[in-house]
Amino acid sequence: MSKEAQTSVPIHELVANRWSPRAFTGETMPVASLKRVLEAARWAPSCFNEQPWRFIVATNDDEAAFARALGCLNESNQRWAKKASALLFTAAKKTFARDGKPNRYALHDLGLAVENLVLQALADGWHAHQMAGIDAGAVRERYAVPEDFETLTAIALGKLADPATLPEPLREREQKPRERLPLSDIAFAGRFGDTWTPRDP
Amino acid sequence: MSKEAQTSVPIHELVANRWSPRAFTGETMPVASLKRVLEAARWAPSCFNEQPWRFIVATNDDEAAFARALGCLNESNQRWAKKASALLFTAAKKTFARDGKPNRYALHDLGLAVENLVLQALADGWHAHQMAGIDAGAVRERYAVPEDFETLTAIALGKLADPATLPEPLREREQKPRERLPLSDIAFAGRFGDTWTPRDP
Repeated sequence: MSKEAQTSVPIHELVANRWSPRAFTGETMPVASLKRVLEAARWAPSCFNEQPWRFIVATNDDEAAFARALGCLNESNQRWAKKASALLFTAAKKTFARDGKPNRYALHDLGLAVENLVLQALADGWHAHQMAGIDAGAVRERYAVPEDFETLTAIALGKLADPATLPEPLREREQKPRERLPLSDIAFAGRFGDTWTPRDP
Repeated sequence: MSKEAQTSVPIHELVANRWSPRAFTGETMPVASLKRVLEAARWAPSCFNEQPWRFIVATNDDEAAFARALGCLNESNQRWAKKASALLFTAAKKTFARDGKPNRYALHDLGLAVENLVLQALADGWHAHQMAGIDAGAVRERYAVPEDFETLTAIALGKLADPATLPEPLREREQKPRERLPLSDIAFAGRFGDTWTPRDP
């Protein structure tokens, strides 16, 4: 199944074809692929090259570790994420290593790294589904996340399965077209809210 | 000049070849390319599909608009960013449109969109350099950014120039290899800080 974005202008195939499925096969993800997605995250840019991103990894070839991770997700996410091949939790270092001051770019920079990770997964034939619906307190406790790190999201990585493997209403949601605000609502010029209207050459 | 990352495992060429130069030619960026980078940002994932990202665009074919944007950067950034083809400011909506509650994923999700933008630029033959060093108050005032949006970074987009066009010490910095923390410092399993050491098949 392809959910290629209906873009207003052509964009790179990885960006156009990335989406967040819930139907996964449950097959094991090769270590090489998992290493590549983490390596892609590693090379993201960040403020002062702080690299505030951290990832906790649990793969479904280790049943106990996977169950422990799955239990940190909201119940509604557990329903489908149990068929993921790997579950990752993301965290960001809240202060700069260089001077201990608050890093207000930490979450933004974590996002930069995560998008690299997600696109690399797709390049390798895997899909990612990010979740805000987690028990961040449970993640902090189970994995002993230090105070200086903010736990933010989970990422399910898996191989795409038939939407028919999902229960309703997830099955229906899985097949809906992807929707976005028009470009005119997010790109401005001159004044915030004034649509960027370039002079075409 | 290539600054391909020395990765521990092979990764997608766009991710491996992305870096943040300061030497730009100053040539005009085709509208089609600029549209594509913004379109790539548009298709990023976000919590509840909120799409909190906003971009203010200034291109160097409009001298007054470009000077107005350039003046919002720190002086040290102005020195090289004056040769960018476009300057963008990023902002994130701090609350959810659906219920007005604080969106703690807003900056993270802005980061997801920005990485799409940066990789799309590279796919089109352009480079991006993100900056934290801006006068966020000036951005807010000059572009009338509403209170509900956080102004975060600037992004210079341009065509790569010879590092020799830069003054020192920027010239030397431009040619340094890219460095990152080892993967073992950012990917954990079982317990935060315990290196993820997968069993190779």
